[in-house]
Amino acid sequence: MERSRRLADGKVVAADDAVKLLESVLEPGDRLCIEGNNQKHADFLAASLARVSSDQVHGLHIVQSNLALPAHLDVFERGIADRLDFCYSGPQGLRLGRLVAEGRVRVGAIHTYLELYSRYFSDLTPRVSLIAADAADAAGNLYTGENTEDTPAIVEATAFKSGILIAQVNRIVDEVPRVDVPGDWVSYVVEAPKPYYIEPIFTRDPAAITEVQILMAMMVIRGIYQKYGVTRLNHGIGFDTAAIELILPTYAAELGLRGEICQYMSVNPCPTLIPAIESGFVEGIHCAGSELGMERYVANRADVFFIGRDGTMRSNRIFCQLAGHYADLFIGSTLQIDLEGNSSTATLNRITGFGGAPNFGSESRGRRHGSKSWLQAGEEANRGRHMPRGRKLVVQIVETFREGLEPTFVERLDAWELQQSFDLPLPPVMAYGDDITHIVTEEGIANLLLCDDLSEREQAIRGIAGYTPVGLARDRAVVDRLREKGAIAYPEDLGVDKRLANRDLLAARSIKDLVHWSGGLYQPPTRFRNW
Amino acid sequence: MERSRRLADGKVVAADDAVKLLESVLEPGDRLCIEGNNQKHADFLAASLARVSSDQVHGLHIVQSNLALPAHLDVFERGIADRLDFCYSGPQGLRLGRLVAEGRVRVGAIHTYLELYSRYFSDLTPRVSLIAADAADAAGNLYTGENTEDTPAIVEATAFKSGILIAQVNRIVDEVPRVDVPGDWVSYVVEAPKPYYIEPIFTRDPAAITEVQILMAMMVIRGIYQKYGVTRLNHGIGFDTAAIELILPTYAAELGLRGEICQYMSVNPCPTLIPAIESGFVEGIHCAGSELGMERYVANRADVFFIGRDGTMRSNRIFCQLAGHYADLFIGSTLQIDLEGNSSTATLNRITGFGGAPNFGSESRGRRHGSKSWLQAGEEANRGRHMPRGRKLVVQIVETFREGLEPTFVERLDAWELQQSFDLPLPPVMAYGDDITHIVTEEGIANLLLCDDLSEREQAIRGIAGYTPVGLARDRAVVDRLREKGAIAYPEDLGVDKRLANRDLLAARSIKDLVHWSGGLYQPPTRFRNW
Repeated sequence: MERSRRLADGKVVAADDAVKLLESVLEPGDRLCIEGNNQKHADFLAASLARVSSDQVHGLHIVQSNLALPAHLDVFERGIADRLDFCYSGPQGLRLGRLVAEGRVRVGAIHTYLELYSRYFSDLTPRVSLIAADAADAAGNLYTGENTEDTPAIVEATAFKSGILIAQVNRIVDEVPRVDVPGDWVSYVVEAPKPYYIEPIFTRDPAAITEVQILMAMMVIRGIYQKYGVTRLNHGIGFDTAAIELILPTYAAELGLRGEICQYMSVNPCPTLIPAIESGFVEGIHCAGSELGMERYVANRADVFFIGRDGTMRSNRIFCQLAGHYADLFIGSTLQIDLEGNSSTATLNRITGFGGAPNFGSESRGRRHGSKSWLQAGEEANRGRHMPRGRKLVVQIVETFREGLEPTFVERLDAWELQQSFDLPLPPVMAYGDDITHIVTEEGIANLLLCDDLSEREQAIRGIAGYTPVGLARDRAVVDRLREKGAIAYPEDLGVDKRLANRDLLAARSIKDLVHWSGGLYQPPTRFRNW
Repeated sequence: MERSRRLADGKVVAADDAVKLLESVLEPGDRLCIEGNNQKHADFLAASLARVSSDQVHGLHIVQSNLALPAHLDVFERGIADRLDFCYSGPQGLRLGRLVAEGRVRVGAIHTYLELYSRYFSDLTPRVSLIAADAADAAGNLYTGENTEDTPAIVEATAFKSGILIAQVNRIVDEVPRVDVPGDWVSYVVEAPKPYYIEPIFTRDPAAITEVQILMAMMVIRGIYQKYGVTRLNHGIGFDTAAIELILPTYAAELGLRGEICQYMSVNPCPTLIPAIESGFVEGIHCAGSELGMERYVANRADVFFIGRDGTMRSNRIFCQLAGHYADLFIGSTLQIDLEGNSSTATLNRITGFGGAPNFGSESRGRRHGSKSWLQAGEEANRGRHMPRGRKLVVQIVETFREGLEPTFVERLDAWELQQSFDLPLPPVMAYGDDITHIVTEEGIANLLLCDDLSEREQAIRGIAGYTPVGLARDRAVVDRLREKGAIAYPEDLGVDKRLANRDLLAARSIKDLVHWSGGLYQPPTRFRNW
C-alpha cells in the first residue's frame, strides 16, 4: 500500500505506472473483479493486469460478469489467475473451454448477472476491482455517462469491504459533468491511453428483417400482447423482437393498441425502438447500458429514458434486470428447444454462460403485486389448483430451422453433451420448460399454460415445429384437440392475415429510416451507413 | 419551481418552510414517494406533507415501501392523496383497512420491496421523493450512515427521471463523513427539528428464548444446515431464528460445523448474531439496514460487515434482498400454514402487506450457479424429472400452537377471508407451498421435497402438526411411510437429544451476555437494559 501511494499523485496514477500499481496492490490469491459488460470494458486495466509479473502476482480468483477480451484469458494463460466465477464469455468461449480442459482455469460457477452481483455481497466480494468510467476529477469522483451498467454493484461491494477500487477513465477533468460514483469510494484513477472500446451490439438493421419474422411479430401482438394486455416487458435483442418493435406503429396501432400494450420496457436503447417511441407507443424505458449512436436521441427524450441533470442517460443493469424480472413478459430467441420446452443457446466446445436471459426468462415467484397480464396468465396456469397465483409470461420466438438449416426443435439439447465435456453440475439451460409459457414459430403459437401434462406440452411443441423431424412426428389428433382448447394457435386462429406479412408493415425499413424517425438525432456507427 | 427556488438558500430550505416548499413543488395528481423503511423514516417531511393545503395539493399517488406513521395515513384522510402502491403497513394496517373500506384510499397493489423498487424504474417512477439522511452539506451531498436502506433505489429513480428529491437530514454540516448520495442528484435539503426516529426492531432478548425454540433450533442445525451444508442464508427476525444463532457457538461447534455452515448471511445486524461472529462461525454479513445499539460493534468488525471509509456501516436493502434471494436458504416464522404448505401472516381486518419475506422465501428460478446445498436439494426435488435443476431451501419454523393457543396449522388460511374483505386479486400468501421445502415444529421436520404429490404433502404436514386438529387428523400409516422415506423426521431420527434442549445451550442467555460477547461495544437501548 505504501508503494502504491508513492505511485499516485493524490488518487491519480499515470498510465505508464498501471502495471506497477497493480503489482503493488495485489496479493497472491486475491479476489479480483475486472469490469466487463456489454458496452464498456476496463480494457486498459485488463491489459495491464495481463502484464504484471506472475512471480509477484499469481493465483488470483477472478469474479467478473463478462469474459470478452483476449487479456481476460491471458491472465490465466500466464498463471496470474487460476480461479474464475463469471456470467458470460461470448467470443472467448472457445478459448475458455480449452483453458478449462488444460486445467489452467478452475471455474467456480457460471452465473446470471444478478446472482454474481449478489455474491459480491456475500462470499465473492472482490478485494480489488478494476472499473471503467468516462471521466474522473482529482478527488476520484467518477462520471460513467450513458454506460453506468455494472459499475454501481462492483463499486459498492468493493469500496465498502475495505477493498481497493481502481478506475480507468477516458479523461481526467477539473469537474465531472455529474457524479456517478462518489470520489471517497474510489482508491485510484488512471487516464487510459485511449477511450474504452464500445461495440454497437444492440443495433439491428431493419433491412435484414424477413417476412417470416414479420408474420411471427404479428402473431405475438395479437396472440400474446393484445390477449393479455402486456404493458411492462423486456425484449431480447434479435431480429425477431426488432420486427415486433417496428410493427407497433403500424399493425398494432391499426388494432387500436396504442396505450394498451408495450408502454414500459426494460431494454437497452435499441435503435429499432425509435418509431415506437416517436409514435407514442412506448412511454418509458429503463436501460441496462447504452447503445452506440443513440446518445443524442436518448438525451432528447428525457420523458421516456432515465436522464441525469447533465443531460445524458443513466443506465444501471441491476435496476433494469430487476424491472425486467418483475415485468409482465419476456420475449427472446434461442438456438435449441427440446420436447419439454427447455431451451439453450449452448454450442458444443464453447462455454458461453448465461448473462441476463435466465433472470428475465424465469417465473418471478417472489412477485406478489397483480397486473392484468399477470393475473390472466395465472388463471390459465392455475386451472384446478387450490391456491391461485399470478404468472409471468415467458415467450420464446424462433423459426423452426435456424441458420445452416439446423432444426431449432430437438429431442435432446446439446447442453447435455456440454455438461459432460466441461463437467458442469447441470446442463446449461437458458430457460426451463416449466418457466416458459409460449413458444412462437412461423407456424403458430404453443401456449404451454394450457397443457395439462408433459405429453400435451410435447404435442403442443410438435404442433408448431413445422417440418423439423420433431414437427413431422406430431400426433395429428392430439394437435387438433390442443388447437381446439387454445394450446396451439395458428395465424388464422388469431385473426392474423398472412398476406399482410410483408416489409411494407415495417415502420422503418432501413437504418436511414430510423435516422429519419429520430429527427436526425440517431447517429448510427459507420458500418451501418450505406448511404 | 420558481417559487420553491425562492424558499431555498442554494439547496438548503429552512424547516419552517417545509410545508411551503412541498406546496410549491407538488402538482395535483403527482406520484410521490415518502421514504419509510424498517429503520428510518422521513418523518418530518411526512408530517409536513400532511399539513399542506389540500386545495393546492390533492389527488397524489403515493408509492412507498412502508406505511408506518400516522402522518402517512393523514394525507389520505385529508384528501391530499388518494392512490397508494406500497409494500408493508405494520402498525397502521387496521387504519389503512378502514380508509380503504371508506373509499379514501385506492390501493393499486401490494408489493414486496424489490418489486416496488422495480416499478420505480418502470411505470411507478416518483416525480417527487421525500427521503431521510443523517447529514448533508450545502451542495446537497448526503450521508446516510448505517441506515442507507431504500435510499439508493428511491434516489436513483427520482433524480434520473427529472424528478424532485427533497432530503430531511439530522444535521447540515460543512463536510459529510462520506458521500452516500451525490449532491447533484439532490434538489433540496431540510434540517429537521429533531433526528429521524429509529426503532430497535431486530433486537431479541435471549432471556425470552424457550426450550422448545432451542429444540427446534437443534433440529434445524442437524436436519437442514448440516445435511445440506448451508453456507449462504437469510434468517427471519423471530426468537426461533435467534435460538439458532445462539446455539451455533455451542451445539453446532460441538458437531464440528464451524466453517461448514452459516458463513455468509444477508440480515440486519441482529444482536443475537454477536456470539456466532465472535466465535468465528459467521464470516460475512450484508445488511439491509442497521439496528439501534449495534453501531460500534459493527464498525469494529469491518472483516465481517460492509463498512465505509468513514468507519460506519453501509447498508442497502436492494443488495441484501438480492443476496438473500440467491442464497441457499431462507428460514423464518409465520402465523398460519395450510395443508398445501401455503403460509400467511395476514390477520383479519388488517392490510399488512408483504415486505421482503416473499422474495427471500421463494424459489430463485433465475438462478443458475451451483452450490452443494442447492444441488443436493435439487436432487431431492428432481426425482423422476427429466431436466435436473437446483433448488433453494425455504424453511418455515413454527410452534404448532401460537400465542393465545391458536393452532398454526389450519385447513383454510384467513388470507381467503382477507381477499374478500379488501377485494384483493389473490389471497395474500407470504410463502407458497410449492416454494417451501421444509416445515419445522417442536414435533419434527417435514421435508416437502420428498413428497410425491399433494396428498403426501398434506400428511407430511399433519405428521408434524402436533396436537392441533390438523395434526390429530393424520393418517398414521401414511405418516409412518413418510417417516421411513425421510419426508418426516423426528428428533430421534436426526440424532437430536431432546434432553440437551435447555437454556444452558445458549451462548448468551441475556442481553448483558451479548454485551459481554461484544467486548462492551454493543450498546443496547435502555428498554433492553435491566441491570
